[in-house]
Amino acid sequence: MGLSPATLRSLEKIVGKKYLTTQKEELLCHSYDATGQSFLPDAVIFPETREEVANIFKLASQKKIPIIPRGSGSGMTGGAIPVQGGVVLVTSRMNRIIEIDEENFIARVEPGVVVSKIHSACEARGLFYPPDPASSSVCTIGGNVGECAGGPRAVKYGVTRDYVLGLTAVIPSGEIIKTGVSTAKGVAGYDLTRLIVGSEGTLAVVTEVILKLLPKPRAVKTLAVFFDSMEKAAKTVSSVMKQAIIPRCVEYMDEASINLVREFLSFELPKTTRALLILELDGHEDQVEKEAEQIKGFCHRAGAIDLLVAADQAEAQKLWEARKALSPVLYKIAPNKINEDIVVPISKISEMVEITGNIQKESGLTVVSFGHAGDGNIHCNIMYDKKDKDQAKRAEKAVDDLFRATLELGGTITGEHGVGITKMKYLPSEIGSIELEIMKEIKKVFDPDSILNPGKIFS
Amino acid sequence: MGLSPATLRSLEKIVGKKYLTTQKEELLCHSYDATGQSFLPDAVIFPETREEVANIFKLASQKKIPIIPRGSGSGMTGGAIPVQGGVVLVTSRMNRIIEIDEENFIARVEPGVVVSKIHSACEARGLFYPPDPASSSVCTIGGNVGECAGGPRAVKYGVTRDYVLGLTAVIPSGEIIKTGVSTAKGVAGYDLTRLIVGSEGTLAVVTEVILKLLPKPRAVKTLAVFFDSMEKAAKTVSSVMKQAIIPRCVEYMDEASINLVREFLSFELPKTTRALLILELDGHEDQVEKEAEQIKGFCHRAGAIDLLVAADQAEAQKLWEARKALSPVLYKIAPNKINEDIVVPISKISEMVEITGNIQKESGLTVVSFGHAGDGNIHCNIMYDKKDKDQAKRAEKAVDDLFRATLELGGTITGEHGVGITKMKYLPSEIGSIELEIMKEIKKVFDPDSILNPGKIFS
Repeated sequence: MGLSPATLRSLEKIVGKKYLTTQKEELLCHSYDATGQSFLPDAVIFPETREEVANIFKLASQKKIPIIPRGSGSGMTGGAIPVQGGVVLVTSRMNRIIEIDEENFIARVEPGVVVSKIHSACEARGLFYPPDPASSSVCTIGGNVGECAGGPRAVKYGVTRDYVLGLTAVIPSGEIIKTGVSTAKGVAGYDLTRLIVGSEGTLAVVTEVILKLLPKPRAVKTLAVFFDSMEKAAKTVSSVMKQAIIPRCVEYMDEASINLVREFLSFELPKTTRALLILELDGHEDQVEKEAEQIKGFCHRAGAIDLLVAADQAEAQKLWEARKALSPVLYKIAPNKINEDIVVPISKISEMVEITGNIQKESGLTVVSFGHAGDGNIHCNIMYDKKDKDQAKRAEKAVDDLFRATLELGGTITGEHGVGITKMKYLPSEIGSIELEIMKEIKKVFDPDSILNPGKIFS
Repeated sequence: MGLSPATLRSLEKIVGKKYLTTQKEELLCHSYDATGQSFLPDAVIFPETREEVANIFKLASQKKIPIIPRGSGSGMTGGAIPVQGGVVLVTSRMNRIIEIDEENFIARVEPGVVVSKIHSACEARGLFYPPDPASSSVCTIGGNVGECAGGPRAVKYGVTRDYVLGLTAVIPSGEIIKTGVSTAKGVAGYDLTRLIVGSEGTLAVVTEVILKLLPKPRAVKTLAVFFDSMEKAAKTVSSVMKQAIIPRCVEYMDEASINLVREFLSFELPKTTRALLILELDGHEDQVEKEAEQIKGFCHRAGAIDLLVAADQAEAQKLWEARKALSPVLYKIAPNKINEDIVVPISKISEMVEITGNIQKESGLTVVSFGHAGDGNIHCNIMYDKKDKDQAKRAEKAVDDLFRATLELGGTITGEHGVGITKMKYLPSEIGSIELEIMKEIKKVFDPDSILNPGKIFS
């Protein structure tokens, strides 16, 4: 389609010459996300203020130009990809931590702030922002709000939604809205805040986020536990939770995951290990110590092969290596992966493990599973070679089978990655047609001309 | 307006003769809520299933009959009052706890279940449903979902919104929708669940709620602390929270509240008491003990007059008496009260106390304040005699002043009671016109003919 020179000049006027680009390299850099899919935008714009964002939208709504909000582009389902061209709006210049209010346990941040910076800024003040997606060293809080990011600590602390008290945002008409509150409670009017959280950048572009903070936990304790079967690992998880112990992380890795990372680890894995749990406790020092002892007991009774307790943070990092080394080495198996973040009830994890085993057998493709056992959120990676048409077909069938099984077990097709473009065709298998119609009508309320991140979530 | 005999016959056909009434006494009984305001409905209906609810709506949308959902009618802002007549739909027959799933930490309940029944059913199984509004022995979970009920435990555990994973609901067209998930995480599509939570029964009638549960805390410890000034009490609250201690309740009572209940207590209050804090800790036994010791330290350093620690649950109940005796005895001061549930940032509580003092002086009316100090949610009760026109005028001005000050301090006009009819005229002072317009458009998506609980929230 392309933008007219006049339109480009108008956009340039809003942000300044330096912050609008149509250079091929820049367009390429902003054409893709972690899905690996790529669509070229017509331009990329870097606004600094909400007023600039508002003016961009005023022009865009008048000229019907698609605007695609983008944080760091680390999304897993194509949320930031300009599938219909248009202007990619990058939040990198709106990157201020405006305020950390220690007395009231809130932070006010701009959307472009990298999540790990919020973590460190809070922790330096004895505060704590719990959501910690695996990409926290690169992803932005704006992206986290858009997708309702989760991560390993959700089992104890919940997801992004649970920490967003209020928003300032620009709707496609170019009007600036404020939603929610900056207090712990607030129920005046409909909950526009949580409607925007997780809407994958299709309802509004967030320009300020008010986050709820907690006091920083006094102590953290990390354990790695090795099992010779996934069943034993799963049983341990529910034993732990039933004892009123909620670890802040309960991560697991299956046999395929373990085999992939074995050689990268600085500690030795018992040879018969077929399942690994990483548990992290936090809270009061004594409580954490006692709970760790209890967990050791459960693990031994469940028949764990071995158990490592990190003596300090450095050792804890080593244990986490196993989990963090995983994503990059997946490509050793095959050049492409389909990464699905299904969720099943905790009691169905063993069953799901069996099902993914069957899918692996039937498809002839390697399926690597790891993830957040504590909340049933499993990352299933179906490894294949895209160029091999037969493999691609089998991979697609594997996803179909995976989602069908997930829904049959009472689960959901996405726990934290969103729908974007990659899960669009599967959404109707989870969400009924009336519910989808309501969502589409809500989209129209915010974006009647469909200029904000078009072609996402709904087909 | 009235309903035609044919319409009444059709309604009767849906639920059976026994469960539709137009008897004057029944209409009166279902005309009011805790605001004391009263509007007569044309009929009251008691459906038992979601299919019956769906059929009621199919008829109502065809005939444009207002339907007003009602739990126990304990709401504080008129949410269940049939201001435009029509049919009050009572959920009392949809009162089953369908399932408590111990392995997956969820409960599935019908809207008419009384909240305290959910508490006891969960606790009997070693589980815990945290939200505990003061009316929990009478209010229903459907009402709690409609208003997004809070209560004292919100300081640690959050509000109803944080525990609703999914809903089954009937929209005004008579269609049945399902929203959300029955797993800990889930982000497929827009968050219709939290949009319906807190919508005050204006978007859909909930027929099933999927609740997230926690393991039951192992130990609970209750403390009452007496201060000779509100400032000292407020300072103690922030000292406690800063030490990574989050009590599950931090309730306070001001001097006027204390004077009201003094004679009803089974323990003696020091004579110079001008502020009272009730703190409740829960968690691991050792942790609770240690935290209680730390809190004692803070209280003494802040200059507390005295401190009582409940040795057991019976003693804890006694301490809570002070707080629970309060609502009924308020009417000793004056025949009417305006009960506002404002929220201010925790750091502004002392300032708010001063402001309510000034409002009291200026209005010449008694203002009794108590509430949830831990989250800044203060219940301000302006006591007056409705029949005295001058008093009524001064009470109205007092509310204006209270809300203006609340918003100036960065707070909200309602933390947990909702807008209903009593705060309708104040809503635009908190919510901007564009945001209100969006809310009204969302209302139209669900309820184009405005038959579901009309005349609420928006003017």
